[in-house]
Amino acid sequence: MLDDTHDAHRRSWVPTANEPGTDFPLQNLPLCTFVPPNDARPRVGVGIGDAILDASDWLPGPNLNGFCALPAAQRAELRRQFVRVLEAGAPTRELFAQRDCALFNPTAVGDYTDFYASIHHATNVGKLFRPDNPLLPNYKHVPIGYHGRASSLVASGTPIRRPHGQLGEGKFGPTRELDYEVEVGALLGPANALGAPVPISEARSRVAGVCLVNDWSARDVQRWEYQPLGPFLAKNFGTSVSPWVITAEALEPFRVPAPAHDAPVLPYLQEPDAGAFDIHVEVWLRASGEATAIRLSRAPFREMYWTLGQMVAHHTSNGCPLRAGDLIASGTVSGPEKENRGCLLELTSKGTDPVRLPSGATRTFLEDGDEVILRASAERAGFARIGFGECRGIVLPASV
Amino acid sequence: MLDDTHDAHRRSWVPTANEPGTDFPLQNLPLCTFVPPNDARPRVGVGIGDAILDASDWLPGPNLNGFCALPAAQRAELRRQFVRVLEAGAPTRELFAQRDCALFNPTAVGDYTDFYASIHHATNVGKLFRPDNPLLPNYKHVPIGYHGRASSLVASGTPIRRPHGQLGEGKFGPTRELDYEVEVGALLGPANALGAPVPISEARSRVAGVCLVNDWSARDVQRWEYQPLGPFLAKNFGTSVSPWVITAEALEPFRVPAPAHDAPVLPYLQEPDAGAFDIHVEVWLRASGEATAIRLSRAPFREMYWTLGQMVAHHTSNGCPLRAGDLIASGTVSGPEKENRGCLLELTSKGTDPVRLPSGATRTFLEDGDEVILRASAERAGFARIGFGECRGIVLPASV
Repeated sequence: MLDDTHDAHRRSWVPTANEPGTDFPLQNLPLCTFVPPNDARPRVGVGIGDAILDASDWLPGPNLNGFCALPAAQRAELRRQFVRVLEAGAPTRELFAQRDCALFNPTAVGDYTDFYASIHHATNVGKLFRPDNPLLPNYKHVPIGYHGRASSLVASGTPIRRPHGQLGEGKFGPTRELDYEVEVGALLGPANALGAPVPISEARSRVAGVCLVNDWSARDVQRWEYQPLGPFLAKNFGTSVSPWVITAEALEPFRVPAPAHDAPVLPYLQEPDAGAFDIHVEVWLRASGEATAIRLSRAPFREMYWTLGQMVAHHTSNGCPLRAGDLIASGTVSGPEKENRGCLLELTSKGTDPVRLPSGATRTFLEDGDEVILRASAERAGFARIGFGECRGIVLPASV
Repeated sequence: MLDDTHDAHRRSWVPTANEPGTDFPLQNLPLCTFVPPNDARPRVGVGIGDAILDASDWLPGPNLNGFCALPAAQRAELRRQFVRVLEAGAPTRELFAQRDCALFNPTAVGDYTDFYASIHHATNVGKLFRPDNPLLPNYKHVPIGYHGRASSLVASGTPIRRPHGQLGEGKFGPTRELDYEVEVGALLGPANALGAPVPISEARSRVAGVCLVNDWSARDVQRWEYQPLGPFLAKNFGTSVSPWVITAEALEPFRVPAPAHDAPVLPYLQEPDAGAFDIHVEVWLRASGEATAIRLSRAPFREMYWTLGQMVAHHTSNGCPLRAGDLIASGTVSGPEKENRGCLLELTSKGTDPVRLPSGATRTFLEDGDEVILRASAERAGFARIGFGECRGIVLPASV
């Protein structure tokens, strides 16, 4: 629901929050788990411009699990309080510069689920392996997902060591096909009990906020191991999560209808209102030895075949309990065009069509020293731009 | 390593621990997380005969995660202390009757992984779906596994509500093919850091103990949803875990060589010594309306194609971090004979060959009111029998 916190004319007493192009204007107010300089206690903060407001008075505890557990109405009330505190005219307060703080994963994730909600990604990947039958028969009926590993979720900035794995029969060594996947992550709101599905009409209120996720993948390992039980060691050597939780409330102006389905949707997945978000996600690569990053792709999150609400309703339809602070990732966000492809497997057609970099170098998969940077924003005429910050990770050589 | 704690002649001052056929003689001493009568504080206990010794003085904390985090040498020393306290001749202490206590899951599980280590199960299931090609090409090379959901692990005795799900295109309703799977669970020992594989030579020391797991499964849901990312809602509506942790130390006399492999094993999976355990697992069914349970199957755990040590080495080979108290389940324990088949899908050949019960009733899959009871034991001439206690669950009708 739109309210006056979304008014684009309101400004903050924090000067950098009013600069054009900032990710964190007064209308955003993303939350994070951080440690200020010269301190050791993790706590909750609010992002504003290039600064962080310590929010422990409102949200005690070492992370955002408590925030996630709040009902939507209380989350919205908190947002109104943060706007009042940070709006131009309010008394200034002590802030910390983001660059001086350590930022962590927003929540302690109990369980992490990864969906596969981009029909463009599923079709592109399917084409590479099954040219005549790219999309499996269940795709348009079931929001396909699988469980990832919570213990291997890492904070943005954590280097990713190239993993060893089985690359085929009798072959064990460092992956030769290291890839990224750009995904949107949902930090989940109030828990449902075992045996108590969340109806689709309430599913929206169970997403407390969103972030960015890089689901690093070893494609050679994945190809060899994934049948019949799905990806495992190809994915659980490190999954990067961005530190900023863009609240569901901040994203209200960017709700849009999900794309039309050309197959019937079962009643338990029929969302009563606009369930998609108009967010664009970008992948940038700072190739090894280069000073600057270039953009590899940009894709519309609104094109996902299944919405976050549908994922929650599906996930709980058998009574599976989701806990506050759990993470659901969307799956690779790809769109219909080549420039929308959210991983190298797609972008280079399984390594056969390398990406050419401005330096003249090429990439099929990631090389040691490459840094991948995910970004995202939501934009709409008449509203302030909402940025997501960054999710970064640099590739380290395999251990010997 | 065998020591004098395994001496079969030693007896306890607890009379029921000396009865023939007890699961919990002095040589076992399984650990549990329990609440005594008229109390509310969960704590750690030691099972002896039909009783529990409060072990909080040795193992403070609300569950067995602290125990799991101990190095193997400290776990062995604790075992020696418990033997001294409970052996005949030692001063008697206050005990609680097991039947008066509430028993919980032994650990708070951070992540739960389910393997697929029985080649007999993989072949039987494969035959039902791919008669000409039952075993996939990766099976003899990769210990196949996938991530389950920690939030849906439930304590033995928790009723299992028949889940709804997609049973095929356009069909949503209560599963018609509810099944059990008997598995051995490993509670993991000291953690490895992200990026630090556990070598196979050390893998054994990272299993603190074992228990029983019932991986309840909705086969119709599984068949429709599992491609390409594996089982998801077919499995995460409830997974039962037995309360007793049979320690690695108690199982030492039952170590046996794993079955010979007819395909080369990669060096990182070559176990230096006997890595299997000679345990037999049993499934019992108390059919709805019946007073007594009958045994449906009995299978040798030693026949598993991959050992628990190989699972740990494989799981961490890419640097994936395992935490103390995490749960690895073995996958359905089936053997070569029909009476060894550890789930109804196998036992009834996908429902085509029903099980006949003594009452005259038949079962293809589970019916509402059916209770499934898992049991296991390790036996060897000259050693005390080590029992696992039970893992129970009764099927409730689907919610309306």
